[in-house]
Amino acid sequence: MHVIVTGGAGFLGARLIQKLLSEETVLEGQAVTRVTSIDLAPCPVADDRVESLTGDIADSGFIKSALIEEALAEDTGAVCHLAAVVSSQAEADFDLGMRVNLDATRTLLEACRAHSKRLRFLFASSLAVFGPGLSQSRSQPVPEAIGPQPRSSYGAQKAMGELLINDYSRRGFVDGRVCRLPTIVVRPGKPNQAASSFASSIIREPLSGIEAVCPVAGELPLWLSSPRAVVANLVHALALSGEPLGDWRTLNLPGITVTVNEMLDALERVAGPSARQLVRFEPDAAIDAIVASWPGGLDAARPLALGFQADADFDAIIHAYREDELTS
Amino acid sequence: MHVIVTGGAGFLGARLIQKLLSEETVLEGQAVTRVTSIDLAPCPVADDRVESLTGDIADSGFIKSALIEEALAEDTGAVCHLAAVVSSQAEADFDLGMRVNLDATRTLLEACRAHSKRLRFLFASSLAVFGPGLSQSRSQPVPEAIGPQPRSSYGAQKAMGELLINDYSRRGFVDGRVCRLPTIVVRPGKPNQAASSFASSIIREPLSGIEAVCPVAGELPLWLSSPRAVVANLVHALALSGEPLGDWRTLNLPGITVTVNEMLDALERVAGPSARQLVRFEPDAAIDAIVASWPGGLDAARPLALGFQADADFDAIIHAYREDELTS
Repeated sequence: MHVIVTGGAGFLGARLIQKLLSEETVLEGQAVTRVTSIDLAPCPVADDRVESLTGDIADSGFIKSALIEEALAEDTGAVCHLAAVVSSQAEADFDLGMRVNLDATRTLLEACRAHSKRLRFLFASSLAVFGPGLSQSRSQPVPEAIGPQPRSSYGAQKAMGELLINDYSRRGFVDGRVCRLPTIVVRPGKPNQAASSFASSIIREPLSGIEAVCPVAGELPLWLSSPRAVVANLVHALALSGEPLGDWRTLNLPGITVTVNEMLDALERVAGPSARQLVRFEPDAAIDAIVASWPGGLDAARPLALGFQADADFDAIIHAYREDELTS
Repeated sequence: MHVIVTGGAGFLGARLIQKLLSEETVLEGQAVTRVTSIDLAPCPVADDRVESLTGDIADSGFIKSALIEEALAEDTGAVCHLAAVVSSQAEADFDLGMRVNLDATRTLLEACRAHSKRLRFLFASSLAVFGPGLSQSRSQPVPEAIGPQPRSSYGAQKAMGELLINDYSRRGFVDGRVCRLPTIVVRPGKPNQAASSFASSIIREPLSGIEAVCPVAGELPLWLSSPRAVVANLVHALALSGEPLGDWRTLNLPGITVTVNEMLDALERVAGPSARQLVRFEPDAAIDAIVASWPGGLDAARPLALGFQADADFDAIIHAYREDELTS
């Protein structure tokens, strides 16, 4: 089977492509024999089964020709749409966020609708669809039936994307799966323009002996998942048949609720007090306004019953990061 | 103050324009001195304070020039966006629904954003944003925090519009108010392509001695409001200052929960058993799939506390229809 991945050059996209091409992945009884990555840059996965189409996903002309004229083929079985303008960037540049997070999603869906076969369509959404107006404690997990009341343009755009994928699925244009991703830690590399970027920095940098700044309060609970668990869950979402998913295709991916202070406690257990001392608290109102509007946890009972997985605890997340990223 | 109304030639738009121009309406301390109607046809309200711009709201070029070059002026204080492709029509023609219900809403919001003044923006949404996946009895009112899981393209498009208006409001581009309308009965005139059109027909036609067909079961509870109450509530939504509305601008307009059989009981009380006998039950799966997916009631406690109003009961709705429509 051929799979298309937007954002295939990104941190998550590249790991998803690796996992898709691994022997353990079976989609509709088939192995994934080739992947097309669509992103600004070529996919960094060194595997001759990966083809990279490079261009700007904000350019609908590029997306249409990349999909319809180049990528979509008889053996295509799924499209994974991970490309996005992240939270702080979509807040800073509203129009760019709309073009990428909403318009490009729609262009992709239209290209899939025009294809001769009904394709599985995986959409990476986010806990950022939720805002604080949930009339409940931030530390209680948000029940599945609660509606998005985002307090960021990123969250609003993702929530609109969720509705699109569900309606395109209901009409039979695609076979959609929407995964609301927790905040992913520990991301390797450099900070990005996600408002939650600090959640990785405050672990990643101290583990390398570098100072890091935490822009939110230590008491803030975050809803977290390791890259490993998220990638496994995305593949699981793609592999599931439509029937157990039911009519409504939006899933709260499992995560764990951890406060910033508990993250630093775990950092100290793993790397000692000197590592923790490298983290400096410097409140940033713009970041806090976005991150503190997100819930500290989502009810993931249905996804867990469907075989999705959560990390054991935050220590395990740090250990997995050291294994996956620091030893290679 | 100048107010712009899209869908001003329609049943609801024309009544809203009449009410806006009546002496009782005061917006931000001012009377409404002129109204611009934007619709396919001219506004039928015979009042020289009404100007009609005619054209297709699905045509973004027309919308932009109508608003930016013609309608928007120094004295403009509000835009009321009622124009829509209704439920059965949006289900039959997905692309038309997307163009009108989503794209035109966005074009209007962009024109308002480009205006020098922050405008009040009233958006008519619908109980159709909800679907059956609410894990609760259909006869229980849907709490305000519950999320839209629409089972129609109309509902999905309206739910996306709600998110747009909220995000444009949060960013200060407009001062938005989203009203989720109940099913409006009794509409005068002819049946339209709304899936709920029968809810008016089964009262309106028998009152005029004409047969009517009911395509859903008599036990189905509907969430209803009279045109009078809806128009009064739309004006109230426009007149409220932003502060009591709070951060989240979506309001469940009040209504009453009435089953089809209870509607016919009321018809019989008002017009006798011969009127009721004019209603024939003929199940229609396509209409039932849409209408039975809607909740039988929404929790409107917050809007009621904010001064929005509901009809007393269904008998009062029939009496109001006879007063407003059959005596003129």
